[in-house]
Amino acid sequence: MIKFFKYNWQVRDEWFDLCNLLTPDELLKVRRGGVGNILYTFFHIIDVEYSWIRGIQGKEDVVFQFADYNSLEKVKSLSDTLRNEIVAGLKTKLAESKDTLINVPWDEGEYTKDEILHHIIAHEIHHIGQLSVWARELELKPISANFIGRNLKSVHSY
Amino acid sequence: MIKFFKYNWQVRDEWFDLCNLLTPDELLKVRRGGVGNILYTFFHIIDVEYSWIRGIQGKEDVVFQFADYNSLEKVKSLSDTLRNEIVAGLKTKLAESKDTLINVPWDEGEYTKDEILHHIIAHEIHHIGQLSVWARELELKPISANFIGRNLKSVHSY
Repeated sequence: MIKFFKYNWQVRDEWFDLCNLLTPDELLKVRRGGVGNILYTFFHIIDVEYSWIRGIQGKEDVVFQFADYNSLEKVKSLSDTLRNEIVAGLKTKLAESKDTLINVPWDEGEYTKDEILHHIIAHEIHHIGQLSVWARELELKPISANFIGRNLKSVHSY
Repeated sequence: MIKFFKYNWQVRDEWFDLCNLLTPDELLKVRRGGVGNILYTFFHIIDVEYSWIRGIQGKEDVVFQFADYNSLEKVKSLSDTLRNEIVAGLKTKLAESKDTLINVPWDEGEYTKDEILHHIIAHEIHHIGQLSVWARELELKPISANFIGRNLKSVHSY
């Protein structure tokens, strides 16, 4: 499971680099499908990942407002900060007790820790797929989605 | 790992159902990004999954031509047929010896079985994300990408 987190984080950082080529207007332009624009897609991925991880850890949810993170720099900084915190959790017991049932305030369902980890992973890959279509609208070559052939960085490098 | 296969297969079938609402022209219309059209996306997902699974199993690759599967019905039938074969493999030893190195004729790299399984999973989720953008162009509500809240069918049901 941890390999998918490494994959997603690495792909996310490559997308941040690519998006440095875009203007703020291009990053925020309303686009069809997904969550509606490029920058908000990143914010949403980061926010969802962090909320569910905190849910798994039995911690209170922290609500972020997109208005406070309305530039690529700010979103990337949020990603880095929250990732450091998540990594600390991954190093401990996140992958243990997979069948523990988790309840969170923003969802009526009750899910196992394992289901939630799968959800976080699929959620990011899905949204990155959407970015790959929008990138072509901007005449950009999307970041490769290949899992194979990637030299995945250790979580300790974050 | 098997849970992601179940997830992908279930999501794929839901997309097939949704795509029944589309005409052959809509399914084949050239679209920006991804592999260029909806029907070929499914064909590509199925083909890539099957090829890598056969690679893992040390079996010779089978090459399919899209021209032979140019309708939703034919692509769905191919998906069902190949899935039955893959399920038989999953029931045996696919998840074992994760570190075995695999070589395939269509790629110069050498990858572990585990990497390839991750690759197959991420590959499908990524392309389905692209479909979700194209669906909005067609005024369709995309299939949910949620992993949580899904009652995943047993692989034995295929």
